[in-house]
Amino acid sequence: MFEVIGERINTSRKLVQAAVADRDADYIVEDVKKQQEAGANFIDVNAGARIGHETEDMKWLLDTIQPIATVPLTLDSPDPAVLEMAFAMVEKTPMINSISLEKERFEAMMPFLSGKKCKVIALCMDDAGMPNSFDDILGRGRKLIEELNKIGIATSDIYVDPLVQPISTDTNKGTMVLDAVRNIKAEFPDVHITGGLSNISYGLPQRHIINRTFVTLMMDAGMDSAIIDPLDKKIMASIRTADMLLGKDDFCMNYLKGVRAGAIES
Amino acid sequence: MFEVIGERINTSRKLVQAAVADRDADYIVEDVKKQQEAGANFIDVNAGARIGHETEDMKWLLDTIQPIATVPLTLDSPDPAVLEMAFAMVEKTPMINSISLEKERFEAMMPFLSGKKCKVIALCMDDAGMPNSFDDILGRGRKLIEELNKIGIATSDIYVDPLVQPISTDTNKGTMVLDAVRNIKAEFPDVHITGGLSNISYGLPQRHIINRTFVTLMMDAGMDSAIIDPLDKKIMASIRTADMLLGKDDFCMNYLKGVRAGAIES
Repeated sequence: MFEVIGERINTSRKLVQAAVADRDADYIVEDVKKQQEAGANFIDVNAGARIGHETEDMKWLLDTIQPIATVPLTLDSPDPAVLEMAFAMVEKTPMINSISLEKERFEAMMPFLSGKKCKVIALCMDDAGMPNSFDDILGRGRKLIEELNKIGIATSDIYVDPLVQPISTDTNKGTMVLDAVRNIKAEFPDVHITGGLSNISYGLPQRHIINRTFVTLMMDAGMDSAIIDPLDKKIMASIRTADMLLGKDDFCMNYLKGVRAGAIES
Repeated sequence: MFEVIGERINTSRKLVQAAVADRDADYIVEDVKKQQEAGANFIDVNAGARIGHETEDMKWLLDTIQPIATVPLTLDSPDPAVLEMAFAMVEKTPMINSISLEKERFEAMMPFLSGKKCKVIALCMDDAGMPNSFDDILGRGRKLIEELNKIGIATSDIYVDPLVQPISTDTNKGTMVLDAVRNIKAEFPDVHITGGLSNISYGLPQRHIINRTFVTLMMDAGMDSAIIDPLDKKIMASIRTADMLLGKDDFCMNYLKGVRAGAIES
């Protein structure tokens, strides 16, 4: 089943930042409930945007969200101290967002993750920056999986993010990531593939059609998770429809449920 | 480049049938021009619906369309005599729609096609009916290609139609055809894959989102042509967008052209 990581609780979003600053719990609770109703399988929580306040904001957000969370949380921070606190507060096995091969982040995250029971998003990023080729994505994904396996994280708990880049900068940015995902899944059938999608359409008009066409192609290649806004009915419709067409929706039940809920828009 | 076979000039469509019965050339000319402007690469011409009138209707349609046709025509009839007449009337190398492995059609079409310079749609149908499995599609596609090669039709002039069937009847009807198309293209890289798409969504609500998601998946599998209504902006938008994302649109030129022409709808 495709897993949606709901991205809305992020203090870089203006209304969320205001709600966090004002300690407006109702706003946050309402938003999380809506994401869950729309089909989010994880709720991402990122409190990084108010500089100097991340620890207290994350604590308040988790205190606010935990009582009404029916799905696990994705703890989204580069700071192991914030993550240690957050990890102790959650009830369901969380997902950690994220580790990468950038030296500083890698060295900070490995001791935190070591021996922990959690899922983790692994970004195909290193100190050279974004991946520039099929080989970059495949090599970095493989390296991350191998390193995480060594510290006790099972491949089935790893969500590789190949880092989608704008097609407007290079005609091959789509096939590069599609081919790499297909190869990672062939080499590691148990690994998950996730990531944001909207970078693909950066710099182009009518971004929505690009994003939803791309998620369809990515699902065909093996992507089984995405970090998106679950309230975006068009993306969600493409995901539910592709899931059905790829043979993962017995008797079209989820699709029909989505239509009845008004969540399938052409 | 993806090739669109415009399906609108078909006497089974009520307004076209009326225009043909009334010999209303303006209606037909206008429709063909619109299909060409929308990006049709072939114009399908089917005069089969008025029983007993196919020969004269096809002749009139070709007399009407030929002078304004900027693209080749797809001659759509099961009757070799009608096709012989039509073949002699067209100026550009036509596409023939269609041959299959059904004994009667196969034996009628092979002598007609033998030695002719044309493209041909090859349906994966035999006397047992629609394909029931991956192996049916692959085996029938292979057989058709081999038989057509024997009478001088190059693989690059063959358009295999795997015969899309409703996902509502069987959860695996999508993957069956996607996998088969991928394998046919691997075995015969020069062959084209075409077909109608709308059968996939038969019996389900919100058919449009299903059809456009499916064409995206089919293009990823290797479909490089479809028999559709080029005036359907949503399907055309999905096709142009998938072409771009699959690396076949240098500098996103066709996509941007489509946006400017108002032909990209999310």
